[in-house]
Amino acid sequence: MPSPLSLGEIASTLGGRVVGDPDLRIEQVGSLEHAGAHQIAFLASARYKARLAGTRAGAVVLAPEAEALTALPRIVSDDPYPYFARLSQLLNPTVSPQPGRHAACTIDRAARVAASARVEAGAVICAGADIGERTWIGEGCYIGAHSAIGADSRLYPSVVVYASCRIGARALVHSGAVIGADGFGMAQEGGRWLKIPQIGRVLIGDDVEIGANTTIDRGTVDDTVIEDGVKLDNQIQIGHNCRIGAHTAMAGRAGVAGSANIGRRCTLGGAAVVLGHLSICDDVHISAATVISRSIRKPGTYTGMYPFDDHASWARNTALIRHLADLADRVRALERRGKPRNKSDG
Amino acid sequence: MPSPLSLGEIASTLGGRVVGDPDLRIEQVGSLEHAGAHQIAFLASARYKARLAGTRAGAVVLAPEAEALTALPRIVSDDPYPYFARLSQLLNPTVSPQPGRHAACTIDRAARVAASARVEAGAVICAGADIGERTWIGEGCYIGAHSAIGADSRLYPSVVVYASCRIGARALVHSGAVIGADGFGMAQEGGRWLKIPQIGRVLIGDDVEIGANTTIDRGTVDDTVIEDGVKLDNQIQIGHNCRIGAHTAMAGRAGVAGSANIGRRCTLGGAAVVLGHLSICDDVHISAATVISRSIRKPGTYTGMYPFDDHASWARNTALIRHLADLADRVRALERRGKPRNKSDG
Amino acid sequence: MPSPLSLGEIASTLGGRVVGDPDLRIEQVGSLEHAGAHQIAFLASARYKARLAGTRAGAVVLAPEAEALTALPRIVSDDPYPYFARLSQLLNPTVSPQPGRHAACTIDRAARVAASARVEAGAVICAGADIGERTWIGEGCYIGAHSAIGADSRLYPSVVVYASCRIGARALVHSGAVIGADGFGMAQEGGRWLKIPQIGRVLIGDDVEIGANTTIDRGTVDDTVIEDGVKLDNQIQIGHNCRIGAHTAMAGRAGVAGSANIGRRCTLGGAAVVLGHLSICDDVHISAATVISRSIRKPGTYTGMYPFDDHASWARNTALIRHLADLADRVRALERRGKPRNKSDG
Repeated sequence: MPSPLSLGEIASTLGGRVVGDPDLRIEQVGSLEHAGAHQIAFLASARYKARLAGTRAGAVVLAPEAEALTALPRIVSDDPYPYFARLSQLLNPTVSPQPGRHAACTIDRAARVAASARVEAGAVICAGADIGERTWIGEGCYIGAHSAIGADSRLYPSVVVYASCRIGARALVHSGAVIGADGFGMAQEGGRWLKIPQIGRVLIGDDVEIGANTTIDRGTVDDTVIEDGVKLDNQIQIGHNCRIGAHTAMAGRAGVAGSANIGRRCTLGGAAVVLGHLSICDDVHISAATVISRSIRKPGTYTGMYPFDDHASWARNTALIRHLADLADRVRALERRGKPRNKSDG
Repeated sequence: MPSPLSLGEIASTLGGRVVGDPDLRIEQVGSLEHAGAHQIAFLASARYKARLAGTRAGAVVLAPEAEALTALPRIVSDDPYPYFARLSQLLNPTVSPQPGRHAACTIDRAARVAASARVEAGAVICAGADIGERTWIGEGCYIGAHSAIGADSRLYPSVVVYASCRIGARALVHSGAVIGADGFGMAQEGGRWLKIPQIGRVLIGDDVEIGANTTIDRGTVDDTVIEDGVKLDNQIQIGHNCRIGAHTAMAGRAGVAGSANIGRRCTLGGAAVVLGHLSICDDVHISAATVISRSIRKPGTYTGMYPFDDHASWARNTALIRHLADLADRVRALERRGKPRNKSDG
Repeated sequence: MPSPLSLGEIASTLGGRVVGDPDLRIEQVGSLEHAGAHQIAFLASARYKARLAGTRAGAVVLAPEAEALTALPRIVSDDPYPYFARLSQLLNPTVSPQPGRHAACTIDRAARVAASARVEAGAVICAGADIGERTWIGEGCYIGAHSAIGADSRLYPSVVVYASCRIGARALVHSGAVIGADGFGMAQEGGRWLKIPQIGRVLIGDDVEIGANTTIDRGTVDDTVIEDGVKLDNQIQIGHNCRIGAHTAMAGRAGVAGSANIGRRCTLGGAAVVLGHLSICDDVHISAATVISRSIRKPGTYTGMYPFDDHASWARNTALIRHLADLADRVRALERRGKPRNKSDG
């Protein structure tokens, strides 16, 4: 349990302006709907005004323009969402592991595990692997030969890191993630597939978060690279030889096919797909469920979501998509029919 | 192996009307194509009439209107599909585990495991966790601190349940499922991502089935809630703070983004996506591969699948979608052109 | 590390014609961009001519028509891509496991494990299971009762094979794959779901590769069948009762719903979906992110990807899709309006 902090203490640590009782003690963050007297909620947008009116939270974080919407004790911040993130971090600090090795883990004699690291039951650390200071390897994780995990990282239970990969410092890797499996590299010969050995690695920078059951394939001959600060949600697939630029974030079930090169500070919405061998420049935002089939060279927001409708309307409209070219031809014919007549009219 | 039952015994247990020899003994269910003399098949629809004609099954379950389609011994039921489900349950009863703990599991002293439960090799049960009566924790599963699994549940090998989550009674959780990993909550600040600690839980009701490699994220501050009787197929992603109403079912690779609220008795087809913060009312059916981008307030079936075609036709028609607004403008222009002329004609 | 081979030795093993010094020794394959003096790269297409000009590779594999594009020592092959695959296989031979069983694995007394096989730490082999010669069962894998894995196969860490399944010889199964979980079979009765016991198996042929976190469900009563030489990338979902024909390949996150029957030598692009109960004939190629909603009886390439655009253009054009039927009606009205006038003109 976090120790309570007063609004004044919070503001002296994180900034912001306190309105109301600075000695009010806060134990935890909460939502406008469910927070109690010892919790602090935040107002993301004036749209949630009604929720603010009904809240039982002890205090609220909000933007200057929303300051007058409540009489509750409050912290006014120009940027309430990041403020709330930092406040929640303050109240819920990361737990450091107890250094040590569970009796039921398996660590190769030729592995290096920092004295301050922790390795849990059932985890396996292979020869030549290197586990950094204060890093926490969860139950049943597998760290392949010659792979390295940087300091202050946490691998939740059942993460697999194949051989010869590298993950930087302060990584968070969730359960079921698989780092460094073979890329899907096959040449066809006489109706059969010949496997191309996948001898590249996966190299992951610092401050990367990887979601549950996400997979990142190793490169074919060069490496797959995930730069610093990348955030990947659950069930994401990153193909071999990709490069994902720093501070890019992808929501659940996004997929990036092999050899794609994605810039910095990009975002991919849930279930978005980037096809293979494409380049996406910095600062591109791809909407959910959008398939990117060409390279993008201009920052901006790109979308390709097919609209849903009630089933009958969908069926009626969608049937016409297979005849769009005909429809366009007919419009062209109508336009031509008009024109000579205009002349003969003249 | 199930012990054989006669048609008469089956009908006295499950109802239905026997036509033909009530003493015919049945060992197992089978398909119309592959069942043998000691198996009972079922006719889902009159469409499969030809298969019925060719079947070698010993008996068949079918609807009254199909009763005359075969001379085989048969059980006539008004609802042959649920009947077949119950019959297969009867012939293939759930196996209860041998109570006990494998020597190679790890159970914290501060965990509570019911005496009738079973914990397999490599499983880890953390402090404060609670495993219900007759519950079967498979090989390599991980049950985090203070998480509870209800009675008569089965977790197949390699399921991960993070700390402080709750799963109800009679749950079936398939391998690779991850319950309670962090939601994807991040605030942006100066081009970087600030993690918002995910302090909510996952609360799962009774009679829930969760497919292989499905992920359900814990809430940000409030909880992610899966109500009673929900059935989730494989590789489904449920984002943080979602509520999934009772008896809703989702097919493989469906995804629900954060804070979505899905009603009761809904169905999502395979690969369907519901975007974040939306509300879907009760009794909504979403077709496969459909992206729901607005809340739905009226029960019914909704679809948004883009039609496929042979590649050349697709390319020709799809190119026009980027010019639909132009096409509509041109049609409007043609309509306008017509109108004044009509007037001058008159 | 592979032992170096001269160009002459390579050509005498794999064929191809050496141009330049046949005694040049090659240690490894590399990419045109990053290969060094002891590496051999390959030119996939004349499009990469510029990369060839700038390469520091010691040698190159290329097609006869590209032979004159470089002065580097080279091997000319009619089919440079499969040639490169075989060459990389030659330089990176598959490693055979050390026979034996890790002290921390669990093998039931009623299981059969070949003397030349290897079972790693934390793996569990259940009663009646059968592990073939030289097969390598990775850390934390689970092989259910009465399941069989053929000779010369490799299961990377954390693969789950449920009971009574069969995988052939020379399989490669990547981490997190789940073979044989229950199919999603449920009958509805009074607003609730009745589980249909999934008593079929998964039968997998020889020379199959299965990607990380891919799931293949067992059949309901008959079996799910994956024929010889099938290659499945990561996060693929194969529903119950499917049959996937020999030498078919699927890219990441493809999904095949229950009871679909896919022919031989087909390909599915990334995130492609085949709906349930459909038949796809041999030699069909389905583009990425395409949803197949009807059976296909003619070989060829089929596509159904919705085009993306900048967000504003997308919004403008896509809004019209819900009015396509109206637009078509209006075009028809314009055509009709024209016709009588044409007559009156005549």
